[in-house]
Amino acid sequence: MKIKVGIIGATGYAGAELVRILSAHPQTQLVSLTTQSYGGKSFCEVYPHLYKYVDQKCRELDLPALVSEADVIFAALPHGHAIPVAQEALRQGKKFIDLGADFRFDNREVYEQWYKVEHTAPELLEQAVYGLPEMHRDKISSASLVGNPGCYPTSVILGLAPLLTHGLVDTGTVVADSKSGVSGAGRGLSLGVHFAEVNENFRAYNVGMHRHTPEIEQELGKLAGESMVISFTPHLTPMNRGILSTVYAKLKQEMTLEQVRSVYEDYYRNEYFVRLLPPGILPQTKAVAGSNHCDVVPVVDPRTGRVVVISAIDNLIKGAAGQAVQNMNLMYDLPETMGLDKPGLYP
Amino acid sequence: MKIKVGIIGATGYAGAELVRILSAHPQTQLVSLTTQSYGGKSFCEVYPHLYKYVDQKCRELDLPALVSEADVIFAALPHGHAIPVAQEALRQGKKFIDLGADFRFDNREVYEQWYKVEHTAPELLEQAVYGLPEMHRDKISSASLVGNPGCYPTSVILGLAPLLTHGLVDTGTVVADSKSGVSGAGRGLSLGVHFAEVNENFRAYNVGMHRHTPEIEQELGKLAGESMVISFTPHLTPMNRGILSTVYAKLKQEMTLEQVRSVYEDYYRNEYFVRLLPPGILPQTKAVAGSNHCDVVPVVDPRTGRVVVISAIDNLIKGAAGQAVQNMNLMYDLPETMGLDKPGLYP
Amino acid sequence: MKIKVGIIGATGYAGAELVRILSAHPQTQLVSLTTQSYGGKSFCEVYPHLYKYVDQKCRELDLPALVSEADVIFAALPHGHAIPVAQEALRQGKKFIDLGADFRFDNREVYEQWYKVEHTAPELLEQAVYGLPEMHRDKISSASLVGNPGCYPTSVILGLAPLLTHGLVDTGTVVADSKSGVSGAGRGLSLGVHFAEVNENFRAYNVGMHRHTPEIEQELGKLAGESMVISFTPHLTPMNRGILSTVYAKLKQEMTLEQVRSVYEDYYRNEYFVRLLPPGILPQTKAVAGSNHCDVVPVVDPRTGRVVVISAIDNLIKGAAGQAVQNMNLMYDLPETMGLDKPGLYP
Amino acid sequence: MKIKVGIIGATGYAGAELVRILSAHPQTQLVSLTTQSYGGKSFCEVYPHLYKYVDQKCRELDLPALVSEADVIFAALPHGHAIPVAQEALRQGKKFIDLGADFRFDNREVYEQWYKVEHTAPELLEQAVYGLPEMHRDKISSASLVGNPGCYPTSVILGLAPLLTHGLVDTGTVVADSKSGVSGAGRGLSLGVHFAEVNENFRAYNVGMHRHTPEIEQELGKLAGESMVISFTPHLTPMNRGILSTVYAKLKQEMTLEQVRSVYEDYYRNEYFVRLLPPGILPQTKAVAGSNHCDVVPVVDPRTGRVVVISAIDNLIKGAAGQAVQNMNLMYDLPETMGLDKPGLYP
Repeated sequence: MKIKVGIIGATGYAGAELVRILSAHPQTQLVSLTTQSYGGKSFCEVYPHLYKYVDQKCRELDLPALVSEADVIFAALPHGHAIPVAQEALRQGKKFIDLGADFRFDNREVYEQWYKVEHTAPELLEQAVYGLPEMHRDKISSASLVGNPGCYPTSVILGLAPLLTHGLVDTGTVVADSKSGVSGAGRGLSLGVHFAEVNENFRAYNVGMHRHTPEIEQELGKLAGESMVISFTPHLTPMNRGILSTVYAKLKQEMTLEQVRSVYEDYYRNEYFVRLLPPGILPQTKAVAGSNHCDVVPVVDPRTGRVVVISAIDNLIKGAAGQAVQNMNLMYDLPETMGLDKPGLYP
Repeated sequence: MKIKVGIIGATGYAGAELVRILSAHPQTQLVSLTTQSYGGKSFCEVYPHLYKYVDQKCRELDLPALVSEADVIFAALPHGHAIPVAQEALRQGKKFIDLGADFRFDNREVYEQWYKVEHTAPELLEQAVYGLPEMHRDKISSASLVGNPGCYPTSVILGLAPLLTHGLVDTGTVVADSKSGVSGAGRGLSLGVHFAEVNENFRAYNVGMHRHTPEIEQELGKLAGESMVISFTPHLTPMNRGILSTVYAKLKQEMTLEQVRSVYEDYYRNEYFVRLLPPGILPQTKAVAGSNHCDVVPVVDPRTGRVVVISAIDNLIKGAAGQAVQNMNLMYDLPETMGLDKPGLYP
Repeated sequence: MKIKVGIIGATGYAGAELVRILSAHPQTQLVSLTTQSYGGKSFCEVYPHLYKYVDQKCRELDLPALVSEADVIFAALPHGHAIPVAQEALRQGKKFIDLGADFRFDNREVYEQWYKVEHTAPELLEQAVYGLPEMHRDKISSASLVGNPGCYPTSVILGLAPLLTHGLVDTGTVVADSKSGVSGAGRGLSLGVHFAEVNENFRAYNVGMHRHTPEIEQELGKLAGESMVISFTPHLTPMNRGILSTVYAKLKQEMTLEQVRSVYEDYYRNEYFVRLLPPGILPQTKAVAGSNHCDVVPVVDPRTGRVVVISAIDNLIKGAAGQAVQNMNLMYDLPETMGLDKPGLYP
Repeated sequence: MKIKVGIIGATGYAGAELVRILSAHPQTQLVSLTTQSYGGKSFCEVYPHLYKYVDQKCRELDLPALVSEADVIFAALPHGHAIPVAQEALRQGKKFIDLGADFRFDNREVYEQWYKVEHTAPELLEQAVYGLPEMHRDKISSASLVGNPGCYPTSVILGLAPLLTHGLVDTGTVVADSKSGVSGAGRGLSLGVHFAEVNENFRAYNVGMHRHTPEIEQELGKLAGESMVISFTPHLTPMNRGILSTVYAKLKQEMTLEQVRSVYEDYYRNEYFVRLLPPGILPQTKAVAGSNHCDVVPVVDPRTGRVVVISAIDNLIKGAAGQAVQNMNLMYDLPETMGLDKPGLYP
């Protein structure tokens, strides 16, 4: 019998990717697609690429009913809004995967300080698992409540994990400079996503104060075994999909490129979705667009003693919906790659 | 046992889409990928999105050997170059699907006039079938030699077919105004595909003399039952994938939108890959990008007595590689949608 | 003494282009920039490219005061809103150039039918002049009230004018297929201008019912000396600036390309802003972006008996603000090119 | 009498910008435009935006004749090729501004090591002046030979200059992460500038080994008064024009944002082309595109003790042709802003 899935916030970009991926997933059945803006419309009026693939209507949210119909609930909502969903899901004994920020933090103070709201169910933070399978696979497998990582954090953490795990870099020197396509800002309207403002433009935003910073620091700190403070700068790039992160850190001692690559090879040998590219090829967003892969390559710069890691993901897939499905697969003991084992589109 | 596939010209964009689609096709096995430019390189160095999916090396072409290894050969080559491939394939009793122009014409003179070269195997034109399944499904099923349609013709012909088949428009009034993404020009280098020349630019080219014109006229003429001469203007749009055609024709007599839509509904009722969109939604390239669909909508303009048909395809899929695989499925009596039954990516 | 200029709706894209052009115009002085959304903000906070060039604040509209301060008023407003401005300007004996649709029509019924509102000052339509200098230069020179043309009409009318003036084409066969960049939709927010919806997408809209249709027909009809009905289809292209129109018409009798080009040469010999490109070069939007030029080239297709005219403009300049300044120059007996005699930017 | 200008390499993007800017410069006259690829063609066939503005033909290079005709020569050539031009120009007592790398380095060894060629006229390096007016205005004014800065160096150096000049940051901690539009790669053809490869893609290149690195280090070192080694990573962004650099450095001691901004205000108070944006506005490439400005904003991150400087330029103007004209103005004692005092285009 197929897993019954309810999606809350199905008409945002991350939600629509969930719908697309799950509509082709061999073990799931979409039972409820809710939306704040399009209640009553057929889903494919809102997303015409799915015409003939998804024949459901968008519904307005009736939380208890939705949770009762579904086995697993995904939510792609603004922060704060997933907390009642988690409560209801757990009350009814269902699984919940949150694509927002409400369940990513171990420490409510950090969440409250960066998101400027009170966390109204801090007791749930303890059972919530940070849904980065490459770091927390076992815990995810037995979790009922997963906080799916942010898009930027996914790219930065996967880029640095091997170095920090082995204690190879000076943790106080980490600079993460990330560049994102526009779909990461969601389908909501603002001058910042107006085509004519974004096209032929490149800009930084939220310098030194983006909310993904503490999330990155939390997980990097776990890997490093010590608390970390990093510089993180997000940028907006005139493209739809993709994040490329360029991460800088000082090596504690001299290492050759071969030595560093061999650390990455060992670390990611069994990870289907992380690809250490062969020597001579650097990650680029186009090579992962449409797929659940994270491409990673470390470069050693002997002049500066720094390692520069380049990592690339599709922000809507490995950075959101694809990773959420990967987590669901783990939670249901399905093959981790189910529904996700396709390469992307190029060009 | 899987169908053994050889691809000649595998490192162009259409060739690479064939590789991508067929590497995930349940009934095919890639046995040979040849290329003029990258002999000896691993395929995924040339197309890194396929890293871990395609582990073959690009080979230089040894035609008899390639044909001997394969059951079916696809070629994505400049015109003229597919003729010896066809000859060798037929000599060895293999099937051949040509993505170029060498086997699209019933009449060698038309080919020679527009392509400015002699057709060196005109006798093959008789057994070659024009590979538009929605028009020639039965012939394709029993063919050994298929001329896969051009990208522009696919969009224009599918847009007009219902009207011409029923004799509803004045054949002398057809104007087809088409807009293509840049991948249609291939991966070869020219100033015309330089990013800075294309980006923030829109232009027409080959006005009144594009080589797809006679191909469109040939097939429209078959549908209309009379020879046709049309105006066709291709344009270059700053995007990677997609063709949108806007086709104008005078209705022979007044018809309501409902009447015209009902003609289209009947005509395409059983065509999986042609989607007549619901009232109120117009085709757009983004809704078909990454899929083998052709989205079609006719609009009736009572002021002018014209019907305006909008049709959209992904030029590399329904306009090239996807349609070629659809043809292969027919030739092998496989389900026509095998390997092609996925929606595209949005946004 | 400099001409004092007031701009109503200065923070839309067309308004901001007016500000940019007029801030460098040797004979004008900006005295009032009004806006609905940014009252009190400094203009260069809203448009940072003008930092150090424009130091004024945006004001909320106080119509009588603004008109009293200014010699000439420009308005870039939604239709309907310019009527009270015209009334006040004329009452105070000032000049008014409207970039919207309220004063483009000779016939109030046409306006009311296509714009679905009553025209509350139809008596002004008689003294309003349609501000296409290449057609109505003399009338503009002595006008106090100018209806600046729409962007699409500018490109289509300038493309066809020589043919219609000389009665060379069958007026019932005109098809105008136009493609616009996104700035034409203005700076307002809607899903239709969201970057991720527009980028990598091409689509038609308002097929057979765009409001620029009757405007084009009115002016083409004047040129042809008979009433005209045309097919006009606008499309949205993923770029910021530019309109390219491809216009089709049947020649009444056979003409060579040379004959047709010579008609255009004669017609536009003294027009600084219309460039008939040399043989072998087709118009493209990039060649006019940033300038007030309209590039035009006719192509004769002997197979179909049609002439295909390609014309290109920058929609915000020759299609809006630049043309408005050209009109102002005429109204003040200044050199027509003042402030506008610069080429655009390429690439 | 006007200054006679010869341009070598006039048909590349930087060369064509020189032609555009100088064709409107009140004190210059273009006497010779040479090119390797288009000899004999009229310039506006190669760059149609300049039709009616530049009526000269492209010539093949005859170096002594060109130098003899001109008062000042600009060259936009691959490295190594400007050396004979400099020699001939100086021999004939003319001025020479090189847009390439041949005269940017004080030290021939650095040049030879990074550019992998011998410098065949090292004696000229002593009289060559690094053409960044904001740093070397006086020397430029009296120079005959100017090495115009690279595009990346311009953005990085102007971003950091105030901090280094005042010794406020730890020189060993500088990380410069730069993002460029595609025109920076020139008009030459390669797969790396193919539209379909660049569009919807973001990538790093030459990590740790880009040739602008030693140029940046040389000039930063002069400002700091000590030799510097930095991490510099260039990236390719899917846009035509613009460079945005994000530069990180550790403050030697705590400073407030106000303190740091006040250092920048003092430093750039009299610089027309460097704009310290008001609080709350960050640089973006669109705000400088089409202009000779460099927009700069420092951000203080008290959590990390780093200052993050964002700077933006138009790579073809302040990063190439505009800066070269600024240098020429200085060398001829003209107002530094002549021909360059216009804002850019937005959007």
